[in-house]
Amino acid sequence: MKLKVYADRLSQPVRAVIIFCEVNGIDYEEIKVDLANREHLTPEFAEINPMQQLPAIVHGSFKLFESHAILIYIASSFPGVADHWYPADVYKRSKIHSVLDWHHSNLRRGPTLSKTESFWLDDNRPFLLGQNQPSIADLILVCDIMQIKLVGETDWNRLLGPYKKVQQWIESTRNATNPHFDELHKVLKELKEKLQN
Amino acid sequence: MKLKVYADRLSQPVRAVIIFCEVNGIDYEEIKVDLANREHLTPEFAEINPMQQLPAIVHGSFKLFESHAILIYIASSFPGVADHWYPADVYKRSKIHSVLDWHHSNLRRGPTLSKTESFWLDDNRPFLLGQNQPSIADLILVCDIMQIKLVGETDWNRLLGPYKKVQQWIESTRNATNPHFDELHKVLKELKEKLQN
Ligand SMILES: N[C@@H](CCC(=O)N[C@@H](CS)C(=O)NCC(=O)O)C(=O)O
Ligand SMILES: N[C@@H](CCC(=O)N[C@@H](CS)C(=O)NCC(=O)O)C(=O)O
Repeated sequence: MKLKVYADRLSQPVRAVIIFCEVNGIDYEEIKVDLANREHLTPEFAEINPMQQLPAIVHGSFKLFESHAILIYIASSFPGVADHWYPADVYKRSKIHSVLDWHHSNLRRGPTLSKTESFWLDDNRPFLLGQNQPSIADLILVCDIMQIKLVGETDWNRLLGPYKKVQQWIESTRNATNPHFDELHKVLKELKEKLQN
Repeated sequence: MKLKVYADRLSQPVRAVIIFCEVNGIDYEEIKVDLANREHLTPEFAEINPMQQLPAIVHGSFKLFESHAILIYIASSFPGVADHWYPADVYKRSKIHSVLDWHHSNLRRGPTLSKTESFWLDDNRPFLLGQNQPSIADLILVCDIMQIKLVGETDWNRLLGPYKKVQQWIESTRNATNPHFDELHKVLKELKEKLQN
């Protein structure tokens, strides 16, 4: 029963799910749904996800959409996912829910950057919530912030410049998940080059 | 170690948290933070929730905000909360995360009503995801939809009219959580009367 991930790597929550599967050695199949070609709007894909968005997964007869729910499902039901990704401890787990929900209801990137710098990251630990290793919340937020790179290096430097802890945290998340992180973000670079030509 | 709930009953996620505590016999203290008086913007409240929103809880030294995270925390850490509210089964639990996350990223009420009618509710079971008893997702979504009542009965009937299953589901959720449901929604009625005078 192989996990099927419906994906277009141009989507930031899709990248988070695929990086997560790669880093954790999950045996999955990536099924391309081309957003630019509107393949997510076909009746076939509506059978997979009636909301017609990516990412979505199918695992046996179980279907699921929403990236946070998907990451929690994979972390909870595949053996071998290290605890730090989605800690069993109720307090730590609740804080992860809190960051993710907060991020969901605050999708503007300015407040995300400033609150992450001033509140979610502390001075001595590389990851959100004072963890020494990343959780699904690090992955979701960093993949979202990386989308800023599309706009260009100048904007990236201008927007990220004031936030030293955020910069370090992005780098820590990248290091903790490479080579998959860079591999998945190649599409951003490629798309940017396309848009510039 | 009594649970402290920072609350203004005019907020729909606050009402969901308080109804949940009441229905489940949680021993909690409600601490009023008056949104209209901007009490959530005081430095004192920023110590409780740096995002300065309601609801927020404090339990011993543990602080938490975001209503979904709060409901999951209470369901997971207080004895005596029936399983149907937040099932231990990974499949059921994942579906609850999916509804809640979907709702979070689709806060416009039109699509919420129509997708709830056509997808989330089935024909034979009263609650979301084919449950015979309510989950935290029923409570969150219904409390949010109830806010439409503020606009007035005419709008309520016009908006809800086409959605028979939704109407029944609201009634089922109300019945399953009364007298607390009606008690908590009194403020809506009172506010409406105030606004009309
Ligand atoms: N809250 C959803 C967001 C899903 C989402 O917005 N996906 C985008 C790609 S990033 C999509 O499928 N857009 C196509 C559409 O909405 O028509 C999640 O986290 O999975
Ligand atoms: N996503 C949050 C939403 C919290 C929220 O928006 N609360 C409102 C009341 S319904 C609030 O505190 N508003 C005051 C403000 O944002 O300044 C949750 O579900 O708890």
